[in-house]
Amino acid sequence: MNIAIAQSGGPTCAINASLLGAFREAVKSGKVDAVFGSINGIEGMLNDDLINLKSVIRTNKDMELLRQTPSTVLGSCRFKLPDAEKDEEPYKKICSCMEKHMIECFCYIGGNDSMDTVVKLSAYFKKHGKPYRVIGIPKTIDNDLPITDHTPGFGSAAKYVATTVQEIIRDSSVYSIDSVTVIEIMGRHAGWLTASTCMLHTIGQEAPHLIYLPEADVTVPQILEDIKRERAKHQAVIVAVSEGIDVSSLAESAGVTTAGVDAFGHKFQNGVGKVLEQIIAREFGCKVRSIELNVMQRCSSHLASKTDIDEAEAIGAAGVRAVLSGETGKMMFFRRISDMPYEVVIDMTDATECANLEKKFPKKWITPSKNNVTDEAIGYFLPLIQGDIKLIEKNGLPEHFNRSIFGVFNSL
Amino acid sequence: MNIAIAQSGGPTCAINASLLGAFREAVKSGKVDAVFGSINGIEGMLNDDLINLKSVIRTNKDMELLRQTPSTVLGSCRFKLPDAEKDEEPYKKICSCMEKHMIECFCYIGGNDSMDTVVKLSAYFKKHGKPYRVIGIPKTIDNDLPITDHTPGFGSAAKYVATTVQEIIRDSSVYSIDSVTVIEIMGRHAGWLTASTCMLHTIGQEAPHLIYLPEADVTVPQILEDIKRERAKHQAVIVAVSEGIDVSSLAESAGVTTAGVDAFGHKFQNGVGKVLEQIIAREFGCKVRSIELNVMQRCSSHLASKTDIDEAEAIGAAGVRAVLSGETGKMMFFRRISDMPYEVVIDMTDATECANLEKKFPKKWITPSKNNVTDEAIGYFLPLIQGDIKLIEKNGLPEHFNRSIFGVFNSL
Repeated sequence: MNIAIAQSGGPTCAINASLLGAFREAVKSGKVDAVFGSINGIEGMLNDDLINLKSVIRTNKDMELLRQTPSTVLGSCRFKLPDAEKDEEPYKKICSCMEKHMIECFCYIGGNDSMDTVVKLSAYFKKHGKPYRVIGIPKTIDNDLPITDHTPGFGSAAKYVATTVQEIIRDSSVYSIDSVTVIEIMGRHAGWLTASTCMLHTIGQEAPHLIYLPEADVTVPQILEDIKRERAKHQAVIVAVSEGIDVSSLAESAGVTTAGVDAFGHKFQNGVGKVLEQIIAREFGCKVRSIELNVMQRCSSHLASKTDIDEAEAIGAAGVRAVLSGETGKMMFFRRISDMPYEVVIDMTDATECANLEKKFPKKWITPSKNNVTDEAIGYFLPLIQGDIKLIEKNGLPEHFNRSIFGVFNSL
Repeated sequence: MNIAIAQSGGPTCAINASLLGAFREAVKSGKVDAVFGSINGIEGMLNDDLINLKSVIRTNKDMELLRQTPSTVLGSCRFKLPDAEKDEEPYKKICSCMEKHMIECFCYIGGNDSMDTVVKLSAYFKKHGKPYRVIGIPKTIDNDLPITDHTPGFGSAAKYVATTVQEIIRDSSVYSIDSVTVIEIMGRHAGWLTASTCMLHTIGQEAPHLIYLPEADVTVPQILEDIKRERAKHQAVIVAVSEGIDVSSLAESAGVTTAGVDAFGHKFQNGVGKVLEQIIAREFGCKVRSIELNVMQRCSSHLASKTDIDEAEAIGAAGVRAVLSGETGKMMFFRRISDMPYEVVIDMTDATECANLEKKFPKKWITPSKNNVTDEAIGYFLPLIQGDIKLIEKNGLPEHFNRSIFGVFNSL
């Protein structure tokens, strides 16, 4: 009996650790012959583009490198399965791939879109009496999956963001002029990653002075009032703002649009950082700059959280144990037992509980002022960033798992 | 006899290490009573805004924190002294500050602008028979100071840039679509930091596939030709480009301007990354994105090079030894003895040799194709990024030197 594993959605620092955990567990189980990697998520199953993982993960060093390599070594996709009622073709292709390679179990590492795939596939397999099983292993830096206490990948992103924001605070306060620095942080719909900058308040930093989340319904007048008050106290005001804030309504209420025009005359949309930069500069006339942490916040594995990477590996392994024991249509998740000492257990739930759903940052963890978060939130975040990965380096730089040994990605 | 130290110009990860080296050496010398920190560069001497460093750097832990704190704990400035012939007022103020606090020696940690201050001050002191001496200690992530083999701060920036570019390479190659990623890297006039991404070629990375420096006179037709060729070989093409490239002439030859219009109707200038993004997208119609490493490349001390930090501390100490022994109007510098094993010695030169001058990346280290650098350049860069700093952490985050104990920055 064989097993296949795929990775999906946006990159994180922990997806390859989950792949490693799943791979190791499958090998160790004694029940699995071949462990296949499906190239570019579910697309690999659709196109019969698989790789024999035992042939590329061969040594302990390979495994260590996999743990410290960000993004997805198997590639990724944004492909969403259609309803089987409307278009059965992809389902038939997947079944035919599984049959051809004697794959009984499929592990899908991904976010809420990927859990939609887990739900649809498992329903199809059941309905058509197929002997196949599918299980979801969570990941996303956005931390917005329901049911699970947190998602693999989030802790490393939070560690990167807090560490880097502290360095930007130092960078922002060197000159003897008044300034406002707006740092835009990822989170398409939820403010978890932005909120996590509150951890800096536990190590002697007053900044970020203001933390704005999509869950808090802030208005332009309030933001300007907040900044005015902070400017009276601090020469360099630092604002952490989530990309998920409704920038259009902010811009509209400030009497501007979010549209810019580039050098080719093409329109583009400004993010919330740029829009706030402009609104604040117009109001106060001081130096204002906005900084995007860009893709670095999801791929900076040199600064990964050991807790996050260890947990990602463990939940990958747990997913394989579950699917081998007969489970299907489930997503693995973390249940937190305690903040201090930190303790989590791994459990599973129907993937329908998570598919296409989002978990927002709790309103009760936002201060009444709507511009900061509570100590309870700090207690939630802190355990997730603990510990550093001892990196394997070469020439002073972290080594990554060499994906090129996969060849052109279409050979078995 | 007292001594004063100041920090100037843009932040780096190593300026505080040089401050520490200078402070320690002054204390150790037995010749110095008070060691003053001048707040915001030379502005502190102009405004009599000094701090007694012994009162704020008190423990070994303070010193370790100083070593791992980026930016300038004493603040910085961009102030340039006028010609003394035209406006003697600032010189008189500085002399009066030095007299008042019995300061005989002044150490200025900075780049080529700061060396201009060293030259002018030492000339003024000599001409007016003042007993004061001034010495320059180099720093800049741009690595563009003449005479010195390299500048403190550059090695850490290069280590950050190479590490981060490798992570962006992973992030850029997850989806099964063709893409070009343009990474814009700091260096106002010289391509050193961009060129240093070549180090990735020594650890199994083919990317960055193209490296464009201001010293290479590339044209838009060549860039498009290069990218076409790389696209035939790689699904995800990675381009490292220096911000110092003449973006106006590139844009002009592509028939566009660099000007955009923001949401307020204000014009702004696009950097080279954005302009190349647009030119490449127009030509190939594939996914193109540009990424700026922004201020993170000059302040990411969590990823500092131990070699860089150790050297910064050593050259700060050497500066104090020199100025105490009677030198003035000099800049300290590194002379490289050998790449492998790496060996440098610290020497000094007239600051006039460096003031307002720039050292470009050597043309002989650029390949004839103008889109890459030679192995000799790799041999130059590699020693500068070796070693990691063992960070003092609290709650999973690096601790920084607490500048708030300086109070409101105007109390002695």
